[in-house]
Amino acid sequence: MQKVPDVEPEYNEMKIPGRIAILGGGTWATALAKIVLTKETHINWYMRRPDQIEDFIRIGHNPSYLSNVPFNLDRITFFSDINEVVKNSDTLILAVPSPFLKGHLEKLEVPLEDKFIISAIKGIIPPENLVVTDYLTQYYNIPAENMAIIGGPCHAEEIALERLTYPTIACPNLSRAAMVANIFNNRFVKASTSIDVSGIELAAVLKNVYAIAAGICHGLKYGDNFQAVLVSNAIMEMERFVDAVSPIKRTIYESAYMGDLLVTSYSSFSRNRTFGSMIGKGYSVKAAQIEMEMIAEGYYGVKCIMEMNDSYNVEMPIADTVYNVLYEKAPARAEIKRLREILK
Amino acid sequence: MQKVPDVEPEYNEMKIPGRIAILGGGTWATALAKIVLTKETHINWYMRRPDQIEDFIRIGHNPSYLSNVPFNLDRITFFSDINEVVKNSDTLILAVPSPFLKGHLEKLEVPLEDKFIISAIKGIIPPENLVVTDYLTQYYNIPAENMAIIGGPCHAEEIALERLTYPTIACPNLSRAAMVANIFNNRFVKASTSIDVSGIELAAVLKNVYAIAAGICHGLKYGDNFQAVLVSNAIMEMERFVDAVSPIKRTIYESAYMGDLLVTSYSSFSRNRTFGSMIGKGYSVKAAQIEMEMIAEGYYGVKCIMEMNDSYNVEMPIADTVYNVLYEKAPARAEIKRLREILK
Repeated sequence: MQKVPDVEPEYNEMKIPGRIAILGGGTWATALAKIVLTKETHINWYMRRPDQIEDFIRIGHNPSYLSNVPFNLDRITFFSDINEVVKNSDTLILAVPSPFLKGHLEKLEVPLEDKFIISAIKGIIPPENLVVTDYLTQYYNIPAENMAIIGGPCHAEEIALERLTYPTIACPNLSRAAMVANIFNNRFVKASTSIDVSGIELAAVLKNVYAIAAGICHGLKYGDNFQAVLVSNAIMEMERFVDAVSPIKRTIYESAYMGDLLVTSYSSFSRNRTFGSMIGKGYSVKAAQIEMEMIAEGYYGVKCIMEMNDSYNVEMPIADTVYNVLYEKAPARAEIKRLREILK
Repeated sequence: MQKVPDVEPEYNEMKIPGRIAILGGGTWATALAKIVLTKETHINWYMRRPDQIEDFIRIGHNPSYLSNVPFNLDRITFFSDINEVVKNSDTLILAVPSPFLKGHLEKLEVPLEDKFIISAIKGIIPPENLVVTDYLTQYYNIPAENMAIIGGPCHAEEIALERLTYPTIACPNLSRAAMVANIFNNRFVKASTSIDVSGIELAAVLKNVYAIAAGICHGLKYGDNFQAVLVSNAIMEMERFVDAVSPIKRTIYESAYMGDLLVTSYSSFSRNRTFGSMIGKGYSVKAAQIEMEMIAEGYYGVKCIMEMNDSYNVEMPIADTVYNVLYEKAPARAEIKRLREILK
């Protein structure tokens, strides 16, 4: 008869979902906490800054983001130490901006291998230019089947208002994807499942780039007819790139890909679109970033995509345009004028 | 030696484009007149009502639609008699609402066979439930290669403002499509060409139906996340139906199909979306129609599509929903609640 160890069982057998932690203190992390607490009785919640946690506890909501969402503090354990939150949790939901993920993980002294990780990060890790799951596999030895991602159209501001939202959960193991979907599903969230992890991750990065393009054109006073053509061309460019990087059969106009692009390109809640719009109106990149006080993920995303595309050589006129405007000081008006001769 | 007749040569040999006529006095017809007159020196223009023509001539612009667009009256010959305009023209651009086309054509006493016809009508002819080109072939013996259609995202209001617009011209004969594109191309219009006449015609009908659905959801306070999922599902539904009716290879997310759907579903200029929005807010169908004073083509379109689909049996939950709300007095809130369980 085999002896079953009675100490630290979490290191021998994964508990999914077990104790759930949210990592991140921004808008998206706050929306995810609201979703998870609609069903789960308790979460661990990591925020880097202890003063943000103190303020949160004092006023009962996130002091800086989605402050219209009240939380029952009895059901949350806050952590400002990433090692403590990881030690005390089985499933980690990553919701920090992609350029900061490495900085958080570098502080880790406890292993990640036995955790189930759900990436809600819509971005690429610079300078490795890897999507989050590939980064975690390569640098933290996390097996692919121990990771899931959240994709699809999910504006945090709408989740705060409990407006019906359809995310897609992708995991190579479909029954685990369904388990994750089950954590999220409630009266205002209807999650689908998929196995296309890197396709959905890449689409999530690209859509921010295209939303910046849509914003630039909006700022330059291009109209709705042009926007529709830009977005149609963007979905074709997205398909070309995603198929080149991850050549499996997928339907690019499913909501995990195209829906995400649409909500980001057309919604007034989109920070990437707002950022682009400011550039189109004549703000410098620096000035727009200072004015916004939030990270437009597409700013980092387009650089990573361009660097990745050095190996793939996919035709990407829209991403090229955004890159030239944001990094090469190309004037937006002239760049869009050039682009519009290529669109059809 | 063959004698070349010197009378009525237009009955022996087609002149393309020759003398161009616009048929219709509404918003779209007015935008098309503006486009054509940007390049051509003269047009014939048919409007049913002599008093509309009188007012137009008196004030120098269309009295009821796009009144911000001035016209040089020296370059227009107006007709209120359809026989006269057809007799005096070689290329006819049809831009009347689809439910009224038959009424106009029934007055014809001169042949249409020798005319080149460009349909700018985005609708189906009831009760035959035929797209315009099929109707003209079956009832007026017009050969398919003598007809072209204009598709793609083209809000007339934006054309009035000279905002860049990318229509698609479809004709089974690609060089004729290019000829038509050449009539339209100018500094604010960039036309592509295609051979998929009926696919683009059907997409143009469907997109109005889906714009009504988008409007209904907007009126019911569904958010941007939901709209993105609705539109993603709509493009898949559009592909299923168009492929069933006209099974050729096409890329449904090109701008002639998806771009048209996007602009109609997302633009505040869209009358179909506005009509749906009023229904979602609780107006009755009758009240919304009276209030709008304009025809929402999707109202007729959905009935035709549903009747067509009796033969094809394509799964069309969004079109079903719109039909039930508009024709079966089904309450919008309950119908969308049912629909949202089917979307993904």
